[in-house]
Amino acid sequence: MTESTESADTERHNMKMAKKKAARDKIMASKNEERGLVIVHTGKGKGKSSAAFGMIFRHIAWGMPCAVVQFIKGGMDSGEKKLITEKFADECPFYAMGEGFTWETQDKSRDIEMAQAAWAKAKELILDERNSMVLLDEINIAIRYDYVDVNEIVRFLKEEKPPMTHVVLTGRNAKPELLEIADLATEMELLAHPFRSGVKAQRGVEF
Amino acid sequence: MTESTESADTERHNMKMAKKKAARDKIMASKNEERGLVIVHTGKGKGKSSAAFGMIFRHIAWGMPCAVVQFIKGGMDSGEKKLITEKFADECPFYAMGEGFTWETQDKSRDIEMAQAAWAKAKELILDERNSMVLLDEINIAIRYDYVDVNEIVRFLKEEKPPMTHVVLTGRNAKPELLEIADLATEMELLAHPFRSGVKAQRGVEF
Repeated sequence: MTESTESADTERHNMKMAKKKAARDKIMASKNEERGLVIVHTGKGKGKSSAAFGMIFRHIAWGMPCAVVQFIKGGMDSGEKKLITEKFADECPFYAMGEGFTWETQDKSRDIEMAQAAWAKAKELILDERNSMVLLDEINIAIRYDYVDVNEIVRFLKEEKPPMTHVVLTGRNAKPELLEIADLATEMELLAHPFRSGVKAQRGVEF
Repeated sequence: MTESTESADTERHNMKMAKKKAARDKIMASKNEERGLVIVHTGKGKGKSSAAFGMIFRHIAWGMPCAVVQFIKGGMDSGEKKLITEKFADECPFYAMGEGFTWETQDKSRDIEMAQAAWAKAKELILDERNSMVLLDEINIAIRYDYVDVNEIVRFLKEEKPPMTHVVLTGRNAKPELLEIADLATEMELLAHPFRSGVKAQRGVEF
């Protein structure tokens, strides 16, 4: 490339970027509302819970009170549970109320009882307006098996959730009723997965 | 429901769950390899970086050394950066080497220089076998603009990455060459987004 074509190229690039910046600035200026969001992470891919815990750690970082209720994974020791309960128990109370995965327990009435207790705790935490965010981890599994009624959850989020509180709901197979009222919903889609080729779940990655 | 149909229903449920558990146990038993993974988070949805930081916090929780290089977002103060640099600087060195988004700087040669410096630091951290995980946050943006050559990255990950080290690469528009060598790739797909309805990026949620 000669010097003059290089400089023309640089100029084109800079003009393109300036245009992008102007467009983005205009969009950002129109976004000025702050409110509590209903956030759903679903899909077969990885990252539903870890992205939710990423937001919980953002809250902890900024000193914003938050809380976690785990609906299903109670049996499995995860890094996020360890870190939060050991280091940030005051900033973020952590309620592990599930009993492993449902196919580990094989006791439907007990599963329903646990899920109902977890939902009662979730409502209490959401209604406490000191909390800026409440994470309901793996609640979609409990909803899918009708351990907790999706209509009751939707009604509560629409009618009783304090307007500034963020509620994050994770797990596969989110019901359409829930997705419909979500302000922010992400489907984690699987593109490649090492389990297919014999790699086991590893500490620091999967849990 | 009468008591006898209820008990039949419970039995069916328990048998179904027992079957699921047996199938899952069988699959899990065949997964026994441990190795360092190339993990890619891409797509237009939310959660690419926060899920990656979720894994970094899992590493921190288990006392496994890790490191972060941010390729693009250096200009923006994020909760994860604050939390890691203030509380876990020893466990997880954090290198914010970008200069805001590229359309903020409008200086291509400077952007290339920054991206190249970030990639040099990334290689150094990956080659240090004490690190169990290295997160290259938003590197896909730098790759997309060819600030760093995707072929060089693919070659390095295939030939020089220590076998037990996990490398996580995030950002939209991951190149196919990178997805092809990924052990675990997730596309975060947008289902609903509050920006559409005038809500701005909020602390603890978006950053």
